[in-house]
Amino acid sequence: MSLGEFELIESFFWRRPGQGPRRAVVGNGDDCAVIAPAPGMQLAVSTDTMVEGRHFLSTVDPARLGHKALAVNLSDLAACGAQPLAFTLALTLPRVDEAWLSALARGLLDLADEHECELIGGDTTAGPLSIGMTVMGEVPPGQALLRSGAQPGDDLWVSGHPGEARLALEAFRGTLHPGLSGEAFEATRLAMEAPDPRVALGLGLRGVATAAIDISDGLLGDLGHILRRSRVGATVVLDALPVSPWLAGRAVVEQQDCILAGGDDYELLFTAPVAQRPAVAALADSLGLLLSRIGRIEADPGLRVRVTGLDEGHAGPLVPNRWVSFDHFRG
Amino acid sequence: MSLGEFELIESFFWRRPGQGPRRAVVGNGDDCAVIAPAPGMQLAVSTDTMVEGRHFLSTVDPARLGHKALAVNLSDLAACGAQPLAFTLALTLPRVDEAWLSALARGLLDLADEHECELIGGDTTAGPLSIGMTVMGEVPPGQALLRSGAQPGDDLWVSGHPGEARLALEAFRGTLHPGLSGEAFEATRLAMEAPDPRVALGLGLRGVATAAIDISDGLLGDLGHILRRSRVGATVVLDALPVSPWLAGRAVVEQQDCILAGGDDYELLFTAPVAQRPAVAALADSLGLLLSRIGRIEADPGLRVRVTGLDEGHAGPLVPNRWVSFDHFRG
Repeated sequence: MSLGEFELIESFFWRRPGQGPRRAVVGNGDDCAVIAPAPGMQLAVSTDTMVEGRHFLSTVDPARLGHKALAVNLSDLAACGAQPLAFTLALTLPRVDEAWLSALARGLLDLADEHECELIGGDTTAGPLSIGMTVMGEVPPGQALLRSGAQPGDDLWVSGHPGEARLALEAFRGTLHPGLSGEAFEATRLAMEAPDPRVALGLGLRGVATAAIDISDGLLGDLGHILRRSRVGATVVLDALPVSPWLAGRAVVEQQDCILAGGDDYELLFTAPVAQRPAVAALADSLGLLLSRIGRIEADPGLRVRVTGLDEGHAGPLVPNRWVSFDHFRG
Repeated sequence: MSLGEFELIESFFWRRPGQGPRRAVVGNGDDCAVIAPAPGMQLAVSTDTMVEGRHFLSTVDPARLGHKALAVNLSDLAACGAQPLAFTLALTLPRVDEAWLSALARGLLDLADEHECELIGGDTTAGPLSIGMTVMGEVPPGQALLRSGAQPGDDLWVSGHPGEARLALEAFRGTLHPGLSGEAFEATRLAMEAPDPRVALGLGLRGVATAAIDISDGLLGDLGHILRRSRVGATVVLDALPVSPWLAGRAVVEQQDCILAGGDDYELLFTAPVAQRPAVAALADSLGLLLSRIGRIEADPGLRVRVTGLDEGHAGPLVPNRWVSFDHFRG
């Protein structure tokens, strides 16, 4: 890359003073950025890389790509109940395309501004296209939402409408019969390409949820992480699953596959004591976000999928768990 | 990558409890890691990506590659005067080669252990080989070494023997006449492939230096960053430059080119008031590290290179600055 190309990239990503959130004591441009977490706060840190051809196609709208690259990282902060603070960006570019980079930066920085998360450092390299990020957020000591806190008797909840991203992916792959309407395609494609990280939900779940995770690898697969870490089991009830309007008219098997093992969803799966149902309902109201109770945590290890029987004392017919993991889904 | 391959990678990088430094409140394995900076401390953050073919060759010893990937990031913390705390690792791998990965992890984690810097999170992806890292370190409020603090009258210092990495690179490129002896090649190659980050020096320079930077882009190029940020000028004196024993017998022009514009050196360039000379000498002694006074900061903007005249009131003949930047060096 030439000096002029580096300056171009800088101009898109490193804004002038007065623009965007200012969270750093020392901003980008020194050997390190310096941030000062609020007194007594702990720092939640997560890192993710998106590689062309694996996590996105070269044809994707660059503004959506920029949005998503940050969104998947903010989603990890949300799953911890952390308030976004700052992030670093490692950009590897095969070439410098001004229009593409400008759109990427806009999509990324618009989402960053929305969450008051400052871009504090970065590194741009020539090479095969990938976007790496490390995000940092603040959380009061002991209040981070972990995977390990689920207790027998807790309710199991999920936000939003999992499965839409997978539906769009299958539409791209041409495997859907019937295919999607234009409207359904655009809506589910938006869910896939520009997911909304559930940051406000994560903050609201501090002190309410006992465990949380984002379901980027598929609802049941990620539930498995909570179960292993918390040393508990669970029942998930098919009739209680939230069905996206774009999935509603489709075959039941397809609905279940997308919702339970779709992957690339940035919704939160969380557990909370029964006594917290009013608090969860109040959160759903205040956020205008669907929160669905889809099962319960049990002392008996393992995962049970039933058609009905959401409430204690009820147990509908068991269904074989064919949703082992996202990667093996549909062989 | 298969599940088994992921587990293999995990086994190399994510150690069992009891091994390696433990700096995190919540370690790897949740959505986020959680770290707790010591009360009142600020956090210095830096990120760097190394891409195969650009920053390293596929033939490099993987243990040295692992060492260097962390070393270049620790060098940024050193240049800020920050104590290493933790880092994240974003690994993109075209294939899973057990011996190679095991050596990479060993080189990386040995250096991490040496500096008590904990690997707290990461992401492994299939794709073209690259190694991305974000390091975090602690620094007391207001004590970070910045590029912006140099004052007219300050001395200009450099650590170690800059230029060795460039000498090794030119040996690899076959441009050296005469070539290097086997011993010189191995020694300079070590400087290039497994540099020592000057972490202890950075910590010792808190309260002593007024500005600091690492000279990974070449001594004069990086000095330019200090001059611009500090709004000052400088004189650099050729006769005062530290000449590596491996450069000593070579043409003077080659020596100067390697030392002043070699690049890929992880030495620190710093400025300090004249009154701090005893403190700098004491640091050199206690660290067993060469610290050379190579010039001075002046109010007059711009960079002047002179053959002699290190001390105030002396001014040897001016030399045209042919070392504009690392990238343009030897056009």
